[in-house]
Amino acid sequence: MHLLLLNGPNLNLLGQREPGLYGRQTLDQIETSLCERACADGLTLECFQSNFEGALVDRIHQAMGKVDGILINAGAYTHTSIAIRDALLGTAIPYVELHLSNTHAREPFRHRSFLADRAVGVICGFGPVSYDLALDGLVRHLRNSASGGKS
Amino acid sequence: MHLLLLNGPNLNLLGQREPGLYGRQTLDQIETSLCERACADGLTLECFQSNFEGALVDRIHQAMGKVDGILINAGAYTHTSIAIRDALLGTAIPYVELHLSNTHAREPFRHRSFLADRAVGVICGFGPVSYDLALDGLVRHLRNSASGGKS
Amino acid sequence: MHLLLLNGPNLNLLGQREPGLYGRQTLDQIETSLCERACADGLTLECFQSNFEGALVDRIHQAMGKVDGILINAGAYTHTSIAIRDALLGTAIPYVELHLSNTHAREPFRHRSFLADRAVGVICGFGPVSYDLALDGLVRHLRNSASGGKS
Amino acid sequence: MHLLLLNGPNLNLLGQREPGLYGRQTLDQIETSLCERACADGLTLECFQSNFEGALVDRIHQAMGKVDGILINAGAYTHTSIAIRDALLGTAIPYVELHLSNTHAREPFRHRSFLADRAVGVICGFGPVSYDLALDGLVRHLRNSASGGKS
Amino acid sequence: MHLLLLNGPNLNLLGQREPGLYGRQTLDQIETSLCERACADGLTLECFQSNFEGALVDRIHQAMGKVDGILINAGAYTHTSIAIRDALLGTAIPYVELHLSNTHAREPFRHRSFLADRAVGVICGFGPVSYDLALDGLVRHLRNSASGGKS
Amino acid sequence: MHLLLLNGPNLNLLGQREPGLYGRQTLDQIETSLCERACADGLTLECFQSNFEGALVDRIHQAMGKVDGILINAGAYTHTSIAIRDALLGTAIPYVELHLSNTHAREPFRHRSFLADRAVGVICGFGPVSYDLALDGLVRHLRNSASGGKS
Amino acid sequence: MHLLLLNGPNLNLLGQREPGLYGRQTLDQIETSLCERACADGLTLECFQSNFEGALVDRIHQAMGKVDGILINAGAYTHTSIAIRDALLGTAIPYVELHLSNTHAREPFRHRSFLADRAVGVICGFGPVSYDLALDGLVRHLRNSASGGKS
Amino acid sequence: MHLLLLNGPNLNLLGQREPGLYGRQTLDQIETSLCERACADGLTLECFQSNFEGALVDRIHQAMGKVDGILINAGAYTHTSIAIRDALLGTAIPYVELHLSNTHAREPFRHRSFLADRAVGVICGFGPVSYDLALDGLVRHLRNSASGGKS
Amino acid sequence: MHLLLLNGPNLNLLGQREPGLYGRQTLDQIETSLCERACADGLTLECFQSNFEGALVDRIHQAMGKVDGILINAGAYTHTSIAIRDALLGTAIPYVELHLSNTHAREPFRHRSFLADRAVGVICGFGPVSYDLALDGLVRHLRNSASGGKS
Amino acid sequence: MHLLLLNGPNLNLLGQREPGLYGRQTLDQIETSLCERACADGLTLECFQSNFEGALVDRIHQAMGKVDGILINAGAYTHTSIAIRDALLGTAIPYVELHLSNTHAREPFRHRSFLADRAVGVICGFGPVSYDLALDGLVRHLRNSASGGKS
Amino acid sequence: MHLLLLNGPNLNLLGQREPGLYGRQTLDQIETSLCERACADGLTLECFQSNFEGALVDRIHQAMGKVDGILINAGAYTHTSIAIRDALLGTAIPYVELHLSNTHAREPFRHRSFLADRAVGVICGFGPVSYDLALDGLVRHLRNSASGGKS
Amino acid sequence: MHLLLLNGPNLNLLGQREPGLYGRQTLDQIETSLCERACADGLTLECFQSNFEGALVDRIHQAMGKVDGILINAGAYTHTSIAIRDALLGTAIPYVELHLSNTHAREPFRHRSFLADRAVGVICGFGPVSYDLALDGLVRHLRNSASGGKS
Repeated sequence: MHLLLLNGPNLNLLGQREPGLYGRQTLDQIETSLCERACADGLTLECFQSNFEGALVDRIHQAMGKVDGILINAGAYTHTSIAIRDALLGTAIPYVELHLSNTHAREPFRHRSFLADRAVGVICGFGPVSYDLALDGLVRHLRNSASGGKS
Repeated sequence: MHLLLLNGPNLNLLGQREPGLYGRQTLDQIETSLCERACADGLTLECFQSNFEGALVDRIHQAMGKVDGILINAGAYTHTSIAIRDALLGTAIPYVELHLSNTHAREPFRHRSFLADRAVGVICGFGPVSYDLALDGLVRHLRNSASGGKS
Repeated sequence: MHLLLLNGPNLNLLGQREPGLYGRQTLDQIETSLCERACADGLTLECFQSNFEGALVDRIHQAMGKVDGILINAGAYTHTSIAIRDALLGTAIPYVELHLSNTHAREPFRHRSFLADRAVGVICGFGPVSYDLALDGLVRHLRNSASGGKS
Repeated sequence: MHLLLLNGPNLNLLGQREPGLYGRQTLDQIETSLCERACADGLTLECFQSNFEGALVDRIHQAMGKVDGILINAGAYTHTSIAIRDALLGTAIPYVELHLSNTHAREPFRHRSFLADRAVGVICGFGPVSYDLALDGLVRHLRNSASGGKS
Repeated sequence: MHLLLLNGPNLNLLGQREPGLYGRQTLDQIETSLCERACADGLTLECFQSNFEGALVDRIHQAMGKVDGILINAGAYTHTSIAIRDALLGTAIPYVELHLSNTHAREPFRHRSFLADRAVGVICGFGPVSYDLALDGLVRHLRNSASGGKS
Repeated sequence: MHLLLLNGPNLNLLGQREPGLYGRQTLDQIETSLCERACADGLTLECFQSNFEGALVDRIHQAMGKVDGILINAGAYTHTSIAIRDALLGTAIPYVELHLSNTHAREPFRHRSFLADRAVGVICGFGPVSYDLALDGLVRHLRNSASGGKS
Repeated sequence: MHLLLLNGPNLNLLGQREPGLYGRQTLDQIETSLCERACADGLTLECFQSNFEGALVDRIHQAMGKVDGILINAGAYTHTSIAIRDALLGTAIPYVELHLSNTHAREPFRHRSFLADRAVGVICGFGPVSYDLALDGLVRHLRNSASGGKS
Repeated sequence: MHLLLLNGPNLNLLGQREPGLYGRQTLDQIETSLCERACADGLTLECFQSNFEGALVDRIHQAMGKVDGILINAGAYTHTSIAIRDALLGTAIPYVELHLSNTHAREPFRHRSFLADRAVGVICGFGPVSYDLALDGLVRHLRNSASGGKS
Repeated sequence: MHLLLLNGPNLNLLGQREPGLYGRQTLDQIETSLCERACADGLTLECFQSNFEGALVDRIHQAMGKVDGILINAGAYTHTSIAIRDALLGTAIPYVELHLSNTHAREPFRHRSFLADRAVGVICGFGPVSYDLALDGLVRHLRNSASGGKS
Repeated sequence: MHLLLLNGPNLNLLGQREPGLYGRQTLDQIETSLCERACADGLTLECFQSNFEGALVDRIHQAMGKVDGILINAGAYTHTSIAIRDALLGTAIPYVELHLSNTHAREPFRHRSFLADRAVGVICGFGPVSYDLALDGLVRHLRNSASGGKS
Repeated sequence: MHLLLLNGPNLNLLGQREPGLYGRQTLDQIETSLCERACADGLTLECFQSNFEGALVDRIHQAMGKVDGILINAGAYTHTSIAIRDALLGTAIPYVELHLSNTHAREPFRHRSFLADRAVGVICGFGPVSYDLALDGLVRHLRNSASGGKS
Repeated sequence: MHLLLLNGPNLNLLGQREPGLYGRQTLDQIETSLCERACADGLTLECFQSNFEGALVDRIHQAMGKVDGILINAGAYTHTSIAIRDALLGTAIPYVELHLSNTHAREPFRHRSFLADRAVGVICGFGPVSYDLALDGLVRHLRNSASGGKS
């Protein structure tokens, strides 16, 4: 099972940017830790981060036919990008939406997501732990689907 | 560490009600499985379900001073009950909001939650797996807080 | 054919409460008269009234597998209860929504119903006669469905 | 007691148009059946259908002083015609609004009615049976008013 | 100077319909009185009433090139007809919008006019006197425009 | 019969301010002409203009018991002053609202009037002629009321 | 004169719950103090608190014919319960709405009250003193009504 | 293949009405030119224009079973007529919506179409050329559907 | 302790203006009675009324450093004046907002207050008694704050 | 005459992405076919696709002074990009907006276009045929403008 | 070149009122400093402050024909006064709107300005420096306009 | 002191694009002039323009720890980019938002800024002079902050 982790704009700042809000781990640390976790479970996990909406769209296209599931923290583009939504739906790869912070507790314009209604599930608010939970949730969803049931 | 799992209206129907939407596990099975999971991790987990808003409020009050964290799937009351919000805030017990289905993919009146903005985090869409993820997320949050950092 | 009549909050006041708006018959009189009407048509009709949202949810659950159709005047809960909607949809029993008064002629918050869009049909404004019409409509709908056509 | 049945735009297509939504009876069959029902109860019932808003307004005017009650399925004009509302209020003839389909389950622009708040009552969702229920409801309302009470 | 008085739906009921709201004069009396007033001022005034939106549109078309100004009480169509607006703008004949009742004191859906923003002026609330004021206002506007100034 | 003409903010600029929109007559000329017109009809007309909301409120209070009707062009205060509304309703003197320009053709914030729904009638768009029409409309309304009918 | 004090959900937590917002007095202390105050004025005051909407509705029904006025702090149900509104209107007992905190300074969903527009008056923001003021206000209202004037 | 061209209110004014906005060709010229174009392609095209909503509904009904596709410029009725929508859906004839002007560049009330969401496609802004494009689009759609593919 | 009572526009009409809504006491009587009440409690109370928004702002400025608390019935300015809000916040004097009538039962534009969210508390609906309650509430708030607790 | 065809995000997926919605032709096939069509008419057509908003802006800038008209299917950026709007208006090149699918039949956030109100015209819903229609429409518009008339 | 500085309600409190928000300079100091700055540049600058909307309107009228440009910090009236807007537009004197605080960072009701859309430009957030920037911006605008270009 | 000037999409067109709206200076001229101005004041100013949202985000990240303040004219991205907002907040560098045109006088979608509420201040409408004013404002803000006061 091949998975892809996508991180959107400003997530390269992790550990530096507003640590009170986003924690002190860097993106590199999170990616490394998540890859190990995936590896231990017999999965492969590729990681990609970009501040360009178009680059995220391109990367999703490249995943078509090669990736079984996507973990996406689209950051600010969660709330403004229909193009990323279309890329995800166009490739028809199951995906989980995740956020470090609890978006419901922030500005109203962060309450709307262009990705959530078509995601497998959504997780937010657990800091870097959100990535672990999203990985677990996605893998269990894919294995469950593969075995033909919902539970 | 003592935890409480709260389930709101109609969740006693699980396994019978709209299995295409909510899965085939009964609430009893989910509770048993979650208790075992908690137990294996050295935690205690109590479970309570009610179709009465007032009973859920009462149960939250009783948890004050006795429970370290709450997992709550408030079902329909998520979208209509300020009383449950007030009970959770009044007791100041950290809580995670969870849902079986992806509420973002359903009727617009399910997009508003009176609980989400004050929760530790929110998880939805993974079917019964949502409970496992919520438990993991809550426990890691509580342990992390106890050890004085965010990670 | 077994039917269930549900009445929500404050309908126990009928005959006493605002007779200019709701008429002078008591709920007891309405129930008795409706049961006789049902009986004459070879049907059984059970009646239940509660001021508790949770009790109405519980009663709907109990009807699952035992009742062929529900007549429901949910009173104020029509406009505020997603839990009752979920109970009705969860048990998948066909139901008719009815009101004594013409809700369209009252406060704007009575114009929204959480039950109407999934009901067989909706009837309002005829005073106690609304119950008779709802019974007739529900029975004809059920018999028609049973005979495999819409008319 | 003289009654008038008004049908608005596209109802002449009944039986042909979207039978899954509106049933298989033609308007002619419905009118004939309803007249017989009225007749059996000692009433006269005239029927009129038009696709012209102005023709419906004219027909309502002609009813002034001659008709005791109106059954109206204004179809699409329910949602767009203030002129028909004004005609009904101007002649002060009591009327019942009815619909074949459950308008609450359809497009949002069908949720607003310019007629409902001044009607005796409203009935929707029972297919052709809606006409029978509306007739019963109107007649009982008129007889009840004539005898000076509400019940 | 040739003028045209247009009356929309239900205004043929004047004197009969809700006299508390619209007064006791019939439309015929109002038209006659207004024609005399026009005549005394050396003008000709034609009158037309219809309950059909299309007939009002047709009548406005016929006025093109023959009529110098229009007085229009479009009744309910004021609030719903873009077609009449287009007819008036298409013929480019100056017009005054008038109403018997004070539309600002009535239902919210009567607060929007599709005609008002392109009218010379708007008059409402004076009962049949509104017609006299509208005639005076239109005539003075046309004479003033003809003499090349605004006053 | 004693009447009062009230003009609100910036109307003292008339003749100087945006003549394309408001015409070339000064307020003094309009007042003089209107007084003559009133005088010729056996009425007295007092005039008052102020740029102060409070001064207009004070002036309306002084009219209580001394004035039979008010003509008011409240200018910008039409759209922002609940205090002037309260003064007019508090003194219970019938009033006509008038405007030089067609407010429906201007900025959206000029479409709301705090005075219109309780006025006898409203006139706008005729330039200085609006004053004459308002005077005629008010006088005929008062005489008609005095003679005990609406027409 | 017999009065009833109703407290809604979470008010049993008073003194424990968010003391910065609600003060340090327990509900028991407030009730005792208010009863003494009532007693000293020759009145009787009964007290009832529940976290169940239905129990509050039931309690209001029981007051019909036995209680002259109600003091109600409906807590969260102020903003969500049409059933309590209907119970109060159905029994036609005059009531005063009160709140410990200033609801205008809190979340937007606390700005809407289903009770306020039909209350004698509304008091909020004075902490436990709100109860004293509400009692005084209600008693003076009832005595004033009884003596046939408004003051 | 038999086609029908429908034109709504005021389109009979074409060439006369606001030529800056709608061009200088008359409707007759447009119809003749379009028929020739259709003819050259081996199709028949009938044309109908009316200012009456009801007449357009009637004409659509008559097309049922006789016409393979409809070109409709419903003019102002595009934005106000649910009856025409219902007629088109009731007959289930594929249709293309077209406009001479770019409706997106005009008043906000022209931005809503009751026809667009169920049309094959929508074309606006090309003046009389819009008719040619709509004909081409409709014919290619019908031929494509007939040959069983989308491309 | 020095207090200030401010009354806004039209409150000088009290006793004359709409006595059914506002009672029969004059402002002078209310002020006198309130001063006596304050005096008996060892306080001084100054009174000021104006129909000018600017005068109320000026008066609040003059109170800075001299007054311990303000009672304000801003009348219509409650709903329109940000300037008075800014004056109150700028001087940082605690204030209580009060109204004679129940503003929640009146026009929607009276439901918004620019003063309420920063007030100590709000009282409405008790007629002249509102002044007494507001005085008691303010004094108890100030004494409580002075003694360093909330109670 | 030199033309430019711009395709926005995800259109490179054509033929692969949701063929039920967008058809089976690849973008390459569409571009080739359109170039041939243009060529046959003596025009040159350049094609550009990008998933980057900024790249589309850059490409539009490069067209300034070199291109006579633009065909643009901006995909998701239609609904979110003011930058592309500004680029098109800044270069002042006439453009036609086109879409493969009928955007009116899709999610509400696809109903708003930042490009439509300033386009020559808009075409949607015809699948790949939309490109042909847009080319025809644009060419005829440009030729017509060049020859100095609108038709 | 003659300029006028207008300050609206509560700005006379500067230096005293909320210094954290508005700084410690008094209005007198700001005016003196700004006059010196103007003087050094060969300009005259008059200053006026009032808490009365009407007084600001009057002062703007007096500037007509005597003043070349206005700097206006209308304070709270920025958000509520159409009268000041009308005065500025009526006299047609170019003006710059300025604020000490960043209004975008404050309450939502401060986000609407009745002055901004017709101003030369708007400056906010720089504390007393906003006045200097506004003066520079206005003077450069006037000189640039006088020299016939925009730069 | 090191400063950064950022220009967003389409600002590279300055001098070519809509000169009536944006002036005739090229971006190069503005940057050169502003650098000289900065230089004369002992500051360094770097300049960057891009049409790519992601490139602007990247450039802001690079400024972290190297730049003391940012001048940003984000053009169209002002109204659509949460990513740029997050980059600015994430680096915590003070910034001033500026615009050439008066955005309040343009399309409604330009009235919302994702940057304004967290900026030091906002300046718009002065054409190229806006850059000079923004530089002055930012420098004075930074010097003032450095010297520990607000002025």
